Amino acid sequence: MSDNSFGHLFRVTTWGESHGPAIGCVVDGTPPGIALGEADIQVWLDRRKPGTSRHTSQRREPDRVEILSGVFEGQTTGTPISLLIHNEEARSGDYTAIADRYRPGHADYTYDAKYGLRDPRGGGRSSARETAMRVAAGAIARKILGDGITVRGALIQIGSHRIGAGIWNWDEVENNPFWCPDAAMVRLWSDHLDALRKAGNSTGAVAEVVASGVPAGLGAPVYGKLDAEIAGALMGINAAKGVEIGDGFAAAGLSGVENADEMRLGQDGRPAFLGNHAGGILGGISSGQEIVARVAFKPTSSIPTPLRTITRDGREVDIATTGRHDPCVGIRGVPVAEAMIACVLADHLLRHRAQCGSVRI
Amino acid sequence: MSDNSFGHLFRVTTWGESHGPAIGCVVDGTPPGIALGEADIQVWLDRRKPGTSRHTSQRREPDRVEILSGVFEGQTTGTPISLLIHNEEARSGDYTAIADRYRPGHADYTYDAKYGLRDPRGGGRSSARETAMRVAAGAIARKILGDGITVRGALIQIGSHRIGAGIWNWDEVENNPFWCPDAAMVRLWSDHLDALRKAGNSTGAVAEVVASGVPAGLGAPVYGKLDAEIAGALMGINAAKGVEIGDGFAAAGLSGVENADEMRLGQDGRPAFLGNHAGGILGGISSGQEIVARVAFKPTSSIPTPLRTITRDGREVDIATTGRHDPCVGIRGVPVAEAMIACVLADHLLRHRAQCGSVRI
Amino acid sequence: MSDNSFGHLFRVTTWGESHGPAIGCVVDGTPPGIALGEADIQVWLDRRKPGTSRHTSQRREPDRVEILSGVFEGQTTGTPISLLIHNEEARSGDYTAIADRYRPGHADYTYDAKYGLRDPRGGGRSSARETAMRVAAGAIARKILGDGITVRGALIQIGSHRIGAGIWNWDEVENNPFWCPDAAMVRLWSDHLDALRKAGNSTGAVAEVVASGVPAGLGAPVYGKLDAEIAGALMGINAAKGVEIGDGFAAAGLSGVENADEMRLGQDGRPAFLGNHAGGILGGISSGQEIVARVAFKPTSSIPTPLRTITRDGREVDIATTGRHDPCVGIRGVPVAEAMIACVLADHLLRHRAQCGSVRI
Amino acid sequence: MSDNSFGHLFRVTTWGESHGPAIGCVVDGTPPGIALGEADIQVWLDRRKPGTSRHTSQRREPDRVEILSGVFEGQTTGTPISLLIHNEEARSGDYTAIADRYRPGHADYTYDAKYGLRDPRGGGRSSARETAMRVAAGAIARKILGDGITVRGALIQIGSHRIGAGIWNWDEVENNPFWCPDAAMVRLWSDHLDALRKAGNSTGAVAEVVASGVPAGLGAPVYGKLDAEIAGALMGINAAKGVEIGDGFAAAGLSGVENADEMRLGQDGRPAFLGNHAGGILGGISSGQEIVARVAFKPTSSIPTPLRTITRDGREVDIATTGRHDPCVGIRGVPVAEAMIACVLADHLLRHRAQCGSVRI
Repeated sequence: MSDNSFGHLFRVTTWGESHGPAIGCVVDGTPPGIALGEADIQVWLDRRKPGTSRHTSQRREPDRVEILSGVFEGQTTGTPISLLIHNEEARSGDYTAIADRYRPGHADYTYDAKYGLRDPRGGGRSSARETAMRVAAGAIARKILGDGITVRGALIQIGSHRIGAGIWNWDEVENNPFWCPDAAMVRLWSDHLDALRKAGNSTGAVAEVVASGVPAGLGAPVYGKLDAEIAGALMGINAAKGVEIGDGFAAAGLSGVENADEMRLGQDGRPAFLGNHAGGILGGISSGQEIVARVAFKPTSSIPTPLRTITRDGREVDIATTGRHDPCVGIRGVPVAEAMIACVLADHLLRHRAQCGSVRI
Repeated sequence: MSDNSFGHLFRVTTWGESHGPAIGCVVDGTPPGIALGEADIQVWLDRRKPGTSRHTSQRREPDRVEILSGVFEGQTTGTPISLLIHNEEARSGDYTAIADRYRPGHADYTYDAKYGLRDPRGGGRSSARETAMRVAAGAIARKILGDGITVRGALIQIGSHRIGAGIWNWDEVENNPFWCPDAAMVRLWSDHLDALRKAGNSTGAVAEVVASGVPAGLGAPVYGKLDAEIAGALMGINAAKGVEIGDGFAAAGLSGVENADEMRLGQDGRPAFLGNHAGGILGGISSGQEIVARVAFKPTSSIPTPLRTITRDGREVDIATTGRHDPCVGIRGVPVAEAMIACVLADHLLRHRAQCGSVRI
Repeated sequence: MSDNSFGHLFRVTTWGESHGPAIGCVVDGTPPGIALGEADIQVWLDRRKPGTSRHTSQRREPDRVEILSGVFEGQTTGTPISLLIHNEEARSGDYTAIADRYRPGHADYTYDAKYGLRDPRGGGRSSARETAMRVAAGAIARKILGDGITVRGALIQIGSHRIGAGIWNWDEVENNPFWCPDAAMVRLWSDHLDALRKAGNSTGAVAEVVASGVPAGLGAPVYGKLDAEIAGALMGINAAKGVEIGDGFAAAGLSGVENADEMRLGQDGRPAFLGNHAGGILGGISSGQEIVARVAFKPTSSIPTPLRTITRDGREVDIATTGRHDPCVGIRGVPVAEAMIACVLADHLLRHRAQCGSVRI
Repeated sequence: MSDNSFGHLFRVTTWGESHGPAIGCVVDGTPPGIALGEADIQVWLDRRKPGTSRHTSQRREPDRVEILSGVFEGQTTGTPISLLIHNEEARSGDYTAIADRYRPGHADYTYDAKYGLRDPRGGGRSSARETAMRVAAGAIARKILGDGITVRGALIQIGSHRIGAGIWNWDEVENNPFWCPDAAMVRLWSDHLDALRKAGNSTGAVAEVVASGVPAGLGAPVYGKLDAEIAGALMGINAAKGVEIGDGFAAAGLSGVENADEMRLGQDGRPAFLGNHAGGILGGISSGQEIVARVAFKPTSSIPTPLRTITRDGREVDIATTGRHDPCVGIRGVPVAEAMIACVLADHLLRHRAQCGSVRI
């Protein structure tokens, strides 16, 4: 076991602190013979990087990924792929003032309670900067999934503003700084964030990820359930507080008749479902329908508004975060959530092939 | 790795099908010298068993647990604890009619898609009967946690009927067949379930589990996060579709100022928090506050109302489940959810001692 | 992780003490659709059981294995296979005298040092009785390997009596109580053991296992090496003190020219080797040649000759073991060593299919 | 699971190819608050590096290790420690001639058989260069073990020349280029290696590692046995073909009376043993005695003497290795073997604390 590794056969181990010399990861288990270059990874990192609009942190993180192993002449060799990003703009000076005080909503106190010490520079290991490596690993996972499986995310709620039911345009998602699938909502969210930023405040959000083309049969009963592992993967993203599959909490309010996803024989000769309340997973195993998952992010804890807290030695003090922080971490959480689900699916694709590679139905 | 094992240092491996000769589990990693007898486990199993009111399945499952190893003269020895429950009332005859047809909302089709075959008797491995072993393992986990840590659950919503904010009586939870902490809601839920049962229908529900007395410092950064593992543990329970920690999805609607759990120095000289929006976990590590988690269950998929589905060979047919099924699986999900969280906490207690056993703060 | 589990994708978890009510194991990861019945396992258990000649323990252990899960209508379902053997002849009375004294060469003292207590009945968890479940799991592993791969063992040395080079008759192995491949050695070993038994003494031995038909490509670099895992598997058998692959320790005395296994193109169009000093494994990966491994067993520690030792509270006492023990544990170690290698190979077959299932060469 | 990770709680994941831009590892699970700097690791790497005498490869590998994470202000933080060594002298040109031919004794053919392709530069992932990261990880493991536990190795045999029984001087080990504990043997080995080198040949060797100060109680029954994990750790080192604990294969030739390590009460009030045939491990658990392990290395496969082999497409060709290779890989294997055992012990120290941290005896 390792608390810094994710996945079983497609296994990602990340390392690095926000303001150390670099961050990186080791991706093990990738099948050999897959075309892979740094550009294949960089394109996904660029979607996550800050500073692309006024609504995300104004930090400049070029985040140029380097492949240090596991690729020869443009193909994966089956050995571990080591990825590294140098931390170019590590302004440790920003954080010296908070080294001995516990920022509310942050892991400062809990790290001290666990380890007896911590790296206070930029949150150290607890910084969302670590999620860059999740996105990088997700890029490799997508290569394993192949063109037939797509994993796409969108933001569906900022604060109390949620997009309407039935409105969803994937093309629009790439056209605005929020990954919003509803063009009509963009202006409202933009104004809302501007107001929050001026008020020294922040907001929570909800993201939704949809995986299409996933064949029936991925996942496993009981503790290796696809939905259980997706839930763990999403809840492990910084600031995540809730996870849903399919109808999620709304399913609690339904009756069995309403919730039933009845089956028919599809025109392609394969089973078809009349609904997808289940979000593409039954008994922990994919049904061949779209896999639908949502994750709720809490508001950014680092805000300019002064909050009351204590120091390591128990003195009560004010703290206000003046750094360059995202007012809504959920926005940049979208590519991270996509990446985590891609990793879970790649892992299960290999696990399924291991046990059931000779099943013919 | 194993899809049928849960936990890392406190590791539970379950086995068994609903209508096979027995179900069981192997619990590995339990510290030696802990007093343990079958009665310590049976008491928790009895809370989960069906047939205790008209609102749960009328199956008779005595579910007498046997300890086959790992205990000598009333104490754990540190070797694997094998638990077994014989399946006394396995009416396989009830299920022969559905062996070749896919019950909507069940794992029948997905098991076939994955394995090419399945054990159709009572759902085989996908049956909620497996959760009896989770409760049994949870009983051992509680022994590891000791008296200072309590893990308690309640049902807070059935269908659209949710208990009011601020109403919570732990004593009431044991006084009604729903684990409801709000005495005023019991009659309403009872009537609602009676009506559903008469209509051949079922309903979803939401459970909440609270762990008290958990010291600060349990959990781990990044992929071993306490909340991520709780989310995976709860989402892996049969019929679970959503998981929340602390404010959960409501946190998405809050601002950073509202969501901040400010800190003070408590009267006991330890840090105190003015709120617990975070649900007792910050950066994946426990804060010393109450850990609060919720899980949403979908309605029971097995209902007497006929549903349209297909057979294994593609014929469209009706299916109606006439067996003795819970109209609301969420009710019996409460002890299971408690047990899963107890297991996660016991695992993290051992993991914390391994790495940080010599930390003094 | 679990100290009582073996393998990764073909994963075996054993439980049980020598004189508890039963021993058992859970085998997870078996592909679905494999024909499997209790008789398929029993045949291998019968080869290991004691009392088949005067040279092994005279205990009567019928060791009837029961399959409790994971098999439906004679086929594996892909879910965990639970196996159980009741301990029918548990004469705990034999052991009460030694509950507080440490038998030399046994784990009595080290268990106490680790756990602070132990189950003294028949050695508890440290008893070689646990190896019955390894043989049972090995029977399932053989089913996964299929008919093309055979795993056979023989005893090649008892005490100082080693079979001559170049003498090996697999048919002879089944014809004598020693699994000896050299008919001429049987009488000598028989007399030697008779003499030792009369003298209240015991002896060590060396077993060799050969796996034929293993395709090139199984194993993995660095820490998942096939030879490393075979070494761990064999050294984990009770009483094992040494392990060799191919030439083993003799390779230390060779020169590079002598040790080179030169290559040619075989008549079947595949690479052929002129020697097999490497024992079928290069760089941790199988070469397609026979895999050859040896394991050295120390003499049985339980002997009638009195030995000097101490009690738990430090008094010096004599101890003589009067139970029904094998004078040469290596004999019954042969089927166990075979089983462990079958398990390693089955695990690697699944692991290879997971990562390299689409490799075409 | 991961084929490129070693250990469970003290977990090392290595990456990198011989002639890629760098090699490295991620060490997870290290307790916080341990003083650690690059110099603490470099000192052990320098013992392994080539070119320190004419008897090892004349490659120049400065092997300067960098710590990229997990350490703050000179102390471990409990987060993953990332180590990296740049490959400064990667003369890929040396290897282009052998890209399509299979070197006898090497993993060239088996990598191709497994992955369908390979990185031929310097052996890629199969190069012994990877062992530098084992030594680096071992340096951290030693920090966890503390001053009370020492892990030291020596070479006891080169070719057929083995040091005499009873001759062992630890001080001498650091005084000669062979890690030889017997001063009288140094000249003989030196002449022998000179002759082999002139003849374009190489030789095997045997190393012995002794761990002192290990408390009784480390290890675990059945599959987590300390000796089983040591055996796997040593057999996983490049060129290893045999492993022994304590008397090893010689134990097969002993009688039970000879092999018994009788016990007395020591002057310190703790149990004492009259012998250590067991090599410090009983039932998979340390006894408090010295842990003694040996590993046999085959001769270097890369030799200037031409050998006959085939190309990837089946043509028969000669191959002679003209690079700068060690004539006896066993010499540089000594620090690697030490490091592996230090890693196993550190892992078991944490595992023991997890389960048995509250045991008092």
